[in-house]
Amino acid sequence: MAKKQKTFRPKARKPRGFRDRLGEEILAEQAMLRRIAEVYASWGFDPLETPAFEYSDALGKFLPDTDRPNAGVFSLTDDDDQWMSLRYDLTAPLARFVAENYDGLVKPFRRYQVGSVWRNEKPGPGRYREFTQFDADSVGAPAPFADAEICAMFAEAVEAAGVPRGDYVIRISNRKVMNGLLEVAGLAGEGFATQRLGVLRAMDKFDKFGAEGVRLLLGKGRKDESGDYTKGAELSDGQTDMVVAFLQATGADNGATMEGLSDLLGASEVGREGISELQAMGEMLGRLGFDESRCKIDLAVVRGLEYYTGPVFEADLTFDVLDDKGRKIQFGSVGGGGRYDDLVKRFKGVEVPAVGVSIGVSRLLAALQARGQAESQWLAPVVVLVMDKGFMADYQQMAAELRASGIRAEVYLGGSGLKAQLKYADKRGSPVTIIVGEDERAKGQVTLKDLRLGKALSGEIDDNKKWREDQPAQMSVRRDALVAGVKEILARY
Amino acid sequence: MAKKQKTFRPKARKPRGFRDRLGEEILAEQAMLRRIAEVYASWGFDPLETPAFEYSDALGKFLPDTDRPNAGVFSLTDDDDQWMSLRYDLTAPLARFVAENYDGLVKPFRRYQVGSVWRNEKPGPGRYREFTQFDADSVGAPAPFADAEICAMFAEAVEAAGVPRGDYVIRISNRKVMNGLLEVAGLAGEGFATQRLGVLRAMDKFDKFGAEGVRLLLGKGRKDESGDYTKGAELSDGQTDMVVAFLQATGADNGATMEGLSDLLGASEVGREGISELQAMGEMLGRLGFDESRCKIDLAVVRGLEYYTGPVFEADLTFDVLDDKGRKIQFGSVGGGGRYDDLVKRFKGVEVPAVGVSIGVSRLLAALQARGQAESQWLAPVVVLVMDKGFMADYQQMAAELRASGIRAEVYLGGSGLKAQLKYADKRGSPVTIIVGEDERAKGQVTLKDLRLGKALSGEIDDNKKWREDQPAQMSVRRDALVAGVKEILARY
Repeated sequence: MAKKQKTFRPKARKPRGFRDRLGEEILAEQAMLRRIAEVYASWGFDPLETPAFEYSDALGKFLPDTDRPNAGVFSLTDDDDQWMSLRYDLTAPLARFVAENYDGLVKPFRRYQVGSVWRNEKPGPGRYREFTQFDADSVGAPAPFADAEICAMFAEAVEAAGVPRGDYVIRISNRKVMNGLLEVAGLAGEGFATQRLGVLRAMDKFDKFGAEGVRLLLGKGRKDESGDYTKGAELSDGQTDMVVAFLQATGADNGATMEGLSDLLGASEVGREGISELQAMGEMLGRLGFDESRCKIDLAVVRGLEYYTGPVFEADLTFDVLDDKGRKIQFGSVGGGGRYDDLVKRFKGVEVPAVGVSIGVSRLLAALQARGQAESQWLAPVVVLVMDKGFMADYQQMAAELRASGIRAEVYLGGSGLKAQLKYADKRGSPVTIIVGEDERAKGQVTLKDLRLGKALSGEIDDNKKWREDQPAQMSVRRDALVAGVKEILARY
Repeated sequence: MAKKQKTFRPKARKPRGFRDRLGEEILAEQAMLRRIAEVYASWGFDPLETPAFEYSDALGKFLPDTDRPNAGVFSLTDDDDQWMSLRYDLTAPLARFVAENYDGLVKPFRRYQVGSVWRNEKPGPGRYREFTQFDADSVGAPAPFADAEICAMFAEAVEAAGVPRGDYVIRISNRKVMNGLLEVAGLAGEGFATQRLGVLRAMDKFDKFGAEGVRLLLGKGRKDESGDYTKGAELSDGQTDMVVAFLQATGADNGATMEGLSDLLGASEVGREGISELQAMGEMLGRLGFDESRCKIDLAVVRGLEYYTGPVFEADLTFDVLDDKGRKIQFGSVGGGGRYDDLVKRFKGVEVPAVGVSIGVSRLLAALQARGQAESQWLAPVVVLVMDKGFMADYQQMAAELRASGIRAEVYLGGSGLKAQLKYADKRGSPVTIIVGEDERAKGQVTLKDLRLGKALSGEIDDNKKWREDQPAQMSVRRDALVAGVKEILARY
């Protein structure tokens, strides 16, 4: 490290890949999180909080052969030389919590958790190294009922967050039908691990590139428009046909999908198991009113995480949002999950059935904001100007009266004069500014200025008296009508 | 580090000094935080979020002469070799944020922030290495008006959190009057730094040990009941008298305190400055209705942090809570703050006036819980038992109807039989359990069991039929009266 100079003055900068957030966005996110939590709680899930840190070995991010925790996490050694890492998701801490408290835990254990997770990865536009996840999991509940329940609850949560019905779909598949496909395609053995991964990666691109693009990725490879070349999975034509047929088996309704699937995978035991789970989930969801318009079996859903062992699902937004230049913004998946019966096994040696869902909070909020559907209770405060510091208590009293009526209000407490104060109120986005100088005091009045109406003119006025007389966007009311007057202006907006 | 064995099975344990939290406590805390945020927002403060990490030099936790960040923080190097530390409070990140965005920021800048902070310290009972703080600060607003405002808002926040008026007091002092005292006591020069620290430490014990105890700490030293000896500040008798007189100058009302203070410190310029700030704060608070019963000048308030430059204050709870053994629980200060005009100077070289307050969330919540004043919207869910998996959709439909009526409800999704299911509902704290077996279905009925009423007996029953007929704590209603019946039982509690 470079030695610091003696008169060290640090540069004020946030760490690379992290962000600050201020004001309205935070409130909109909090409102959204509250609505999701209400849904999860109503289904009987309880809130859980775990520490930011986990021991690296408990996180599963410790490679037995190396001295340092795996890449992708932020790690340090505690003073007893144990490696700790900041959690990179909320599922690994859940597994640790369940294993640590296994005997005393009421099972099925159903919990929701919202919190920051950290990824020690290269940051990019809109990709931060600290972000918020909102998870819900059932531990100790086997497929397929718990899976159907999580999907139904997930749909309700997405709606509660502000996405109208019809603007999203929960797409459901099953890792077992994928394994069945790989089996019937002759890719089941140990020697085909790399090819299997290639197949899953190619399948994941079906929505983006369509059948022809996937064909290329399954075969020799694919060159995209920029000229970048992706090496293919080197499948035979027959194998490729099977995979594409599988992807195209997704029908208009779940019944049609299941029929196509049975034709393709009837020969595979694990495939039949997956089909039966999918069938049961689809039926249960349909009976509960979560039909294909909300929860649809879709065989192109892969979900990356390797630990899934059964049903997988994700929520996709189906509406289009255009950016400034009229281009479609792709929000992609705003969350998803699946069944992971092996996760607690790492600690306990026994298999514990579990299924869960995770919502990517920033992405969902961004989609809602782009659509103008994020709830906002935001209103900038009324600003009481300070014309004479000797009357500070009067100004504070006015602000207190407004607050008592449920109106955000503050007194200007900086050191500047009237012009700077008005500029402050303007920049603050204040809807109403309150002015009480000598004149008003003598008349027992207060002057209320509608800053939004008056905004265009405020920069050009030099003479206080003239300015105050000319403004159409201001009015004087009796001191005891302060609150009523402010409410009158606020009602305009 | 020890090499891991080949078949590694990690022990599931949370890191030392961290904790998990589940259920009701989280909801009570969230409700409390929401009420505090509403107060801060109503005074015109906006929410801010900053990252968990800051660069160590920006945190002020980097010693120029060493290669490692100072003790007390969790630190690691980023992949560009810069040291990063997890924030240990919310003030240092605010200073960084203000300095980084200084020119574009509307000033005074008023923000509140709630979040986790981390201390790499030895954990103890009730002392964790990750905990929540709730801060509010005004940056760019000079004393004394901004300080008075913060104190008034602090009082409102403590009340909004659930502490009734009369059960707390905001105690206010001023670093300048302390400096005035040290000056008139002849402890102002460079050579007395250690003694000054000793004096402030002794003053801080006035509430605990009284005048006599402080006298010992100011003089030769003090031995406590356990025999531990604390070395004294080695003041002369005359100096000791002055400090004790200062502490005892706190009168029944602010007027009396100010009078006593003027007699003691009239000779010191910085002392007079502090007196004038205290005077102005007391007057402003009094005029706004925050008189000595809520905001009281108290010269024994020291506040540890060295960066305070003017007013300091803290909220103390004045009610007694007894523990199981009838002993008083001391909650001490549940928060405090002060003016720190130098904090942004580290980055910018210019002095930026700032004042803020921080609430220790866990401590305040613990006090409210001990007093039974923590708000709780907690109710365990109604549990629908699964007597026959073939009717799962019906059971889910019942739960959905209850949820639609605002009642938490879940279907048992584990793999066990009736007895285990009842045990589950019992352990879950479920107020009502719903049973629909063959009999009920034939009659078009549902059986509702009041688990709290029936709890004592449930373990002893072997015969299902007998148990169901005998229980006084259960009733059968028509299927379409399910919600009404559950509401009837819930109304009992």
